[in-house]
Amino acid sequence: MSRNRKKRISRHLRMSIPPREAVQEGEKAGKPEMTLMTFSGSTFSERKVPSPGELPEIPCEGETAWIDITGLHDAPFLAEAAEKFGIHPLVLEDICNTGQRAKTEDYGDYQYIVVKMVTWDEENGQIEVEQVSFVLFENLLITFQERPGDLFEPVRQRLRQGKGRLRRQGADYLTYSLLDAIVDGYFLLIEKIGDQVEAIEGELLDGPATETSAKIHELRREMIFLRKAAWPLRDAVSSLERGGRFAGSATAVYMRDLYDHVIQVIDGIETIRDILAGMLDIYLSSVSNRMNEVMKVLTIIATIFIPLTFIAGVYGMNFVFMPELEWKWAYPAVLGVMAATALWMLAFFRKKGWL
Amino acid sequence: MSRNRKKRISRHLRMSIPPREAVQEGEKAGKPEMTLMTFSGSTFSERKVPSPGELPEIPCEGETAWIDITGLHDAPFLAEAAEKFGIHPLVLEDICNTGQRAKTEDYGDYQYIVVKMVTWDEENGQIEVEQVSFVLFENLLITFQERPGDLFEPVRQRLRQGKGRLRRQGADYLTYSLLDAIVDGYFLLIEKIGDQVEAIEGELLDGPATETSAKIHELRREMIFLRKAAWPLRDAVSSLERGGRFAGSATAVYMRDLYDHVIQVIDGIETIRDILAGMLDIYLSSVSNRMNEVMKVLTIIATIFIPLTFIAGVYGMNFVFMPELEWKWAYPAVLGVMAATALWMLAFFRKKGWL
Amino acid sequence: MSRNRKKRISRHLRMSIPPREAVQEGEKAGKPEMTLMTFSGSTFSERKVPSPGELPEIPCEGETAWIDITGLHDAPFLAEAAEKFGIHPLVLEDICNTGQRAKTEDYGDYQYIVVKMVTWDEENGQIEVEQVSFVLFENLLITFQERPGDLFEPVRQRLRQGKGRLRRQGADYLTYSLLDAIVDGYFLLIEKIGDQVEAIEGELLDGPATETSAKIHELRREMIFLRKAAWPLRDAVSSLERGGRFAGSATAVYMRDLYDHVIQVIDGIETIRDILAGMLDIYLSSVSNRMNEVMKVLTIIATIFIPLTFIAGVYGMNFVFMPELEWKWAYPAVLGVMAATALWMLAFFRKKGWL
Amino acid sequence: MSRNRKKRISRHLRMSIPPREAVQEGEKAGKPEMTLMTFSGSTFSERKVPSPGELPEIPCEGETAWIDITGLHDAPFLAEAAEKFGIHPLVLEDICNTGQRAKTEDYGDYQYIVVKMVTWDEENGQIEVEQVSFVLFENLLITFQERPGDLFEPVRQRLRQGKGRLRRQGADYLTYSLLDAIVDGYFLLIEKIGDQVEAIEGELLDGPATETSAKIHELRREMIFLRKAAWPLRDAVSSLERGGRFAGSATAVYMRDLYDHVIQVIDGIETIRDILAGMLDIYLSSVSNRMNEVMKVLTIIATIFIPLTFIAGVYGMNFVFMPELEWKWAYPAVLGVMAATALWMLAFFRKKGWL
Amino acid sequence: MSRNRKKRISRHLRMSIPPREAVQEGEKAGKPEMTLMTFSGSTFSERKVPSPGELPEIPCEGETAWIDITGLHDAPFLAEAAEKFGIHPLVLEDICNTGQRAKTEDYGDYQYIVVKMVTWDEENGQIEVEQVSFVLFENLLITFQERPGDLFEPVRQRLRQGKGRLRRQGADYLTYSLLDAIVDGYFLLIEKIGDQVEAIEGELLDGPATETSAKIHELRREMIFLRKAAWPLRDAVSSLERGGRFAGSATAVYMRDLYDHVIQVIDGIETIRDILAGMLDIYLSSVSNRMNEVMKVLTIIATIFIPLTFIAGVYGMNFVFMPELEWKWAYPAVLGVMAATALWMLAFFRKKGWL
Repeated sequence: MSRNRKKRISRHLRMSIPPREAVQEGEKAGKPEMTLMTFSGSTFSERKVPSPGELPEIPCEGETAWIDITGLHDAPFLAEAAEKFGIHPLVLEDICNTGQRAKTEDYGDYQYIVVKMVTWDEENGQIEVEQVSFVLFENLLITFQERPGDLFEPVRQRLRQGKGRLRRQGADYLTYSLLDAIVDGYFLLIEKIGDQVEAIEGELLDGPATETSAKIHELRREMIFLRKAAWPLRDAVSSLERGGRFAGSATAVYMRDLYDHVIQVIDGIETIRDILAGMLDIYLSSVSNRMNEVMKVLTIIATIFIPLTFIAGVYGMNFVFMPELEWKWAYPAVLGVMAATALWMLAFFRKKGWL
Repeated sequence: MSRNRKKRISRHLRMSIPPREAVQEGEKAGKPEMTLMTFSGSTFSERKVPSPGELPEIPCEGETAWIDITGLHDAPFLAEAAEKFGIHPLVLEDICNTGQRAKTEDYGDYQYIVVKMVTWDEENGQIEVEQVSFVLFENLLITFQERPGDLFEPVRQRLRQGKGRLRRQGADYLTYSLLDAIVDGYFLLIEKIGDQVEAIEGELLDGPATETSAKIHELRREMIFLRKAAWPLRDAVSSLERGGRFAGSATAVYMRDLYDHVIQVIDGIETIRDILAGMLDIYLSSVSNRMNEVMKVLTIIATIFIPLTFIAGVYGMNFVFMPELEWKWAYPAVLGVMAATALWMLAFFRKKGWL
Repeated sequence: MSRNRKKRISRHLRMSIPPREAVQEGEKAGKPEMTLMTFSGSTFSERKVPSPGELPEIPCEGETAWIDITGLHDAPFLAEAAEKFGIHPLVLEDICNTGQRAKTEDYGDYQYIVVKMVTWDEENGQIEVEQVSFVLFENLLITFQERPGDLFEPVRQRLRQGKGRLRRQGADYLTYSLLDAIVDGYFLLIEKIGDQVEAIEGELLDGPATETSAKIHELRREMIFLRKAAWPLRDAVSSLERGGRFAGSATAVYMRDLYDHVIQVIDGIETIRDILAGMLDIYLSSVSNRMNEVMKVLTIIATIFIPLTFIAGVYGMNFVFMPELEWKWAYPAVLGVMAATALWMLAFFRKKGWL
Repeated sequence: MSRNRKKRISRHLRMSIPPREAVQEGEKAGKPEMTLMTFSGSTFSERKVPSPGELPEIPCEGETAWIDITGLHDAPFLAEAAEKFGIHPLVLEDICNTGQRAKTEDYGDYQYIVVKMVTWDEENGQIEVEQVSFVLFENLLITFQERPGDLFEPVRQRLRQGKGRLRRQGADYLTYSLLDAIVDGYFLLIEKIGDQVEAIEGELLDGPATETSAKIHELRREMIFLRKAAWPLRDAVSSLERGGRFAGSATAVYMRDLYDHVIQVIDGIETIRDILAGMLDIYLSSVSNRMNEVMKVLTIIATIFIPLTFIAGVYGMNFVFMPELEWKWAYPAVLGVMAATALWMLAFFRKKGWL
Repeated sequence: MSRNRKKRISRHLRMSIPPREAVQEGEKAGKPEMTLMTFSGSTFSERKVPSPGELPEIPCEGETAWIDITGLHDAPFLAEAAEKFGIHPLVLEDICNTGQRAKTEDYGDYQYIVVKMVTWDEENGQIEVEQVSFVLFENLLITFQERPGDLFEPVRQRLRQGKGRLRRQGADYLTYSLLDAIVDGYFLLIEKIGDQVEAIEGELLDGPATETSAKIHELRREMIFLRKAAWPLRDAVSSLERGGRFAGSATAVYMRDLYDHVIQVIDGIETIRDILAGMLDIYLSSVSNRMNEVMKVLTIIATIFIPLTFIAGVYGMNFVFMPELEWKWAYPAVLGVMAATALWMLAFFRKKGWL
């Protein structure tokens, strides 16, 4: 388990600090997968396309297209795609470099958006993070993901079934829907962590254990990390709402709603952080309370018996001339003195409020 | 009681983190109640309306109407109401989703305001929070509440009795009056908590008890929570004062007054937080003072008697050749040495300032 | 004394949280007192006026008038005064409600200013706070105070004696002079508290006592409170300097000077807060130093004598076959071993740096 | 020495809180000294002038004059000077009142600048602060200092020797040169304090002593104080750079440079503060480490010997029927049990990592 | 090693506080080295130039020149160079004074940029800092470095080999490339420190050692320092992006990218700081946990054996009349009482949760 914790730190650091070159983890990364969806109010088609060269001239008049590329390790593949759609080399670099903070940039022809998608990895009990890039043209959206598996399945279902206004609304609204799915992922994560916070709270009430403090520190670190992911998201969505392609469009009001959601995410994160800080305070003060209790018991036992033992020691001395030793009632008298001493001490402690 | 505390955390988290879908707590929620009040300077009528479809074309010329809907669990009911008055689906979503932060949004035809109404739940000894939404048209105000029971009764009385300027002033002023009642609720809550702070202060002066620290932590958490409710309220009221429907109207000056009240609420919250932080410091330093006192008593008793016990032990040894044992005055002499040692130690401690 | 401290908290809270209705402390509050002063460069008259109705049409051409009303508990009296001069009901409410933060508002005809006047109550050893409201017309100033007794006596004297430019300068300059007197009150208070800080510092150098920490916490709380009074004053004076009635007038330069003074007040408060925080750190570290010293003495005494006592105990055993007991030099040898052990331990402690 | 520390606090407070009247320390303050320097590119004259009335009509065409007044206790003298040059009474008040924060004000005819000059008082080992005011006219600069002795000697030398561009550049550049000398004084002070920080660091590495913590707290307080002097300086120099008399002049670029220096001063102060905070953490954790070590030694000694002493005590009992006492090998067996117990305990402690 | 740490502090301070005169470390500094590179899309030449006077009239039409000067200790050399290119004396002062914060200033003809280049000094295990100044003309870039050895070698290689767009893009792009290399240096440093953080984390999991806390404090100080270097860099790059020579040029988009990288650097620094703060918390709480454990063992051993030893002491007394001593079963009975006492105590401790 200590191994596990160690790996987690580097995970955090790696996520904030991009490797200086485009990711090339080589072997383990195969060919990227590319899925093309085209749709209009009434039509819908979906198919895999093996390479950028085989993409049709998209989109047709009145249609919207969504190209979803999964896997960022095949540099020539991505370069070919970038060139086909006129994507700036710096944008391509940002897409491949998975250490980006959430941001949005307007390149005239297209809007570039990059955000972190967070999910809860049940298996390892940790937050999973994936960088998702959006390149949004007039009626074409290209998304880039690191790995297969995402939070977009509900959106795809709505596209396939043609329910709701998704098909009729074009690429802007599709982008909003995907971003909304990602922000919902943050909410789910916060709920997951909220459950853990409650579990820890239960432990805390049963008495402070060392593992409890370790868990609190663990969660605090996860929150540092989640917070660093969420704050730039706020700025990115805010600038999507106020400027660029979305300003003044019908989608702007949805972006404002999305912004409210991001604020709620951040609020939730801050609330959990405050609660965790409070729990750590409670943990520390309950540890120190227990320490006090231990000290008090020690002191009471020691201060009662140390003088008594001394008295016993005195009459254990082997001097030849100790007149008390021969007195008839000396022994009961000494026992009485000892009891009196002990009672007086107990009374003293009670008066001091230590008992 | 630990159960109780546990529930409280989740309450806090749940309030910051909206469930991802409109509240559907099902069974326990019956039909929403809808009350329609129409009034002008001289007229007033009030009646329950069972469904949105049965609402008359409101309001008539020169009249103002207030529709108060209580209960957010009947989605079709609310959807029908929203459609009748042309309320945007996103607004309806915000109304039903009880995890909103206080905010206001101008939708042209109407102004949407959502705030948290706080009351003190005497029974469970905790803060009760309810989300109240206002949809304000030209001369129509629709309010949405989660549960029956609110802070609006005095306003209703003033409407019914036609006292003051409330009836003559239209929907804007009615909105202000209701918001003012809600802000007054915050003041009442702060006074309630202030009473508890004083009670705890009393306990603190009697000496630090473990429960005292638990109560301080409890109140601190409630304050975190109240603060998260009050800060967005400030922004919402501020933007009501400066922009939207109220700017430049006769109600603007009242909104400025309301803003001053919200600032006072936040000031009160911050003052209580500062006082609680100070009390925790006092608690901790009095705990550490007591610990010091305990340590000192232990040290003094132990350091006085340990050497004496050693001396007694020496003369308790059974060596055959211990000349002192046979000396006539050895026993009193040893007792004298012991007394001298103890006195010297006491003098040493007094000089050190430990006594 | 604990009673006293308890009362102090509620005082602080009450001052930040206004009672929800105009103060009506009933019995103890008699009729308000109203004093009218009219003056021009060469003339001056001063008289008590029993009721607002008996006020003359003031002020005459070329004259300035100052109406000073003391006591806020007679609502009809104040309402009559407000009506006579056309003061807005919300302003009247603010005047009577003594939980205001310092602020200023421009109502066109008149400027409303409310500030806190602080004095040091020698008797109870605490800060006394009184709310003072200014309603400033073209050449008429009305002030409202809670209680008799204020810091304005020097200004009155200057008016009566006609010294300086006070009489010639009109109501604006009079307002400035009174505000300046109030800000001077803050300086006096800071000096008073500064004296107490020095006294506590002296105690701290003599060694940490429990009362010292109580006093530091007490002062910290007073500073929280003073700070909450002073910060809004800054904003109020700043907006007086930059806008409203004073902007561009001859009094503006004095307002800028007043603003500098308020900044100095806040600076002084922050300095005292920083010094108090530092003193608390010093107190805590000197407490922990003393604790360390106590622990060290205990440890040294105990670790030296516990092994010696054990040796003595061994030779106090009553086994029949203990050959050492009969050896001639056994007793001195054992004493020698004991002395050697003790010396070796002392050397060890000295090497460790504990002695 | 405690006296010394006490005085230091009041010094800090006094410096932030101006006495409410112009300084009148009476006896110790003699007549102010006034020095007049006039210079142009080629000419230079310097002389003492006993009173403002005897100042010539200065400056002549094409010449620049610098009047340096030392000593602020002779009110009529200063009033006469102020009147001669048309200085506003509020400015005169600020000049005499030595509790000003650094600031600058533009009075049209002249620019008023007030800053704190800091030097290191070797004798008392503390920071010496002196308020310096600049009144800058078209080609006349008047400076007011509290005491003889300043940091301006190098500037005077450059004026006398006519080296560099100082003589040719007029009053603006002279003002810049003097301010630069004052800012250099801050750098010198930071270096002095940096040396002390290093010395303390050395002590800290040798092991924590009580004096070390006292020194750290002492320096922290000095830094609070220095910081309060430097921050307003930043604002003052910034507004000199951006506005008033210097904006757009040839001296503006030098002011920008001066501003950079002030930022570096503040940076240095913050760095020292951070380092001191870190050192205090190190001190506290090394104290607590030592405490731990002490506790461990006590625990090990006590837990080893207390059971052994108990065993010895058992066989020291005087019961008539204790069969073991007569066994032949009982004594060595008991000694063996004792040794085994001690060894087992040592092994236990080693396993626990306490040894 | 303590020497080493001591030196480090002064290093930090020195870096924030510039020496008041241009660096003149005399002997150890030889002649500066000056390298001239001229290039266009197709041409490239590189040569050492011994003195500024021997520089050709550069650059020719259509060519870009880069003069790289290493060594800042030869004042006349630098002054000659400054004069030849019309560099302002204040800029020259800033170039030579190695205590600058990162900043940029637009002087019309040229843009002045100064930044800190950080590298990891493997030998001494500390951060190495070097000040690099850029003076950027239309098609000429002059760089000034403190010492030989820099992070620019890859850029030089790309220039020599004519790969990429570097040769064709002129002085602006060259400046960007060099700044980018410097920012990459920060990333490398953060990775290096991240490795150390992980190593410390590993130690922390093995149990708290005193050295671990020393290392954490050490790293925290390095981070204070790195942070002070990185924050001004952010402002400098930001103002390069928004204003001056780069605004609106083709290089602006690269500057925006560089700005993102600087933000990531700062993010990484803050993440490491947060992680270090968390680790210190964990260290402290594990130290206090261990202390608790030690205390508990001591208390359990002591409280069990102290009463037993007292009982043994009682029956070790030598009174003549102690009837129990002669009872047949007294000894086993006393042993039984002792065992019962011990067991009862153990049960009590278990109930208290101390075992």
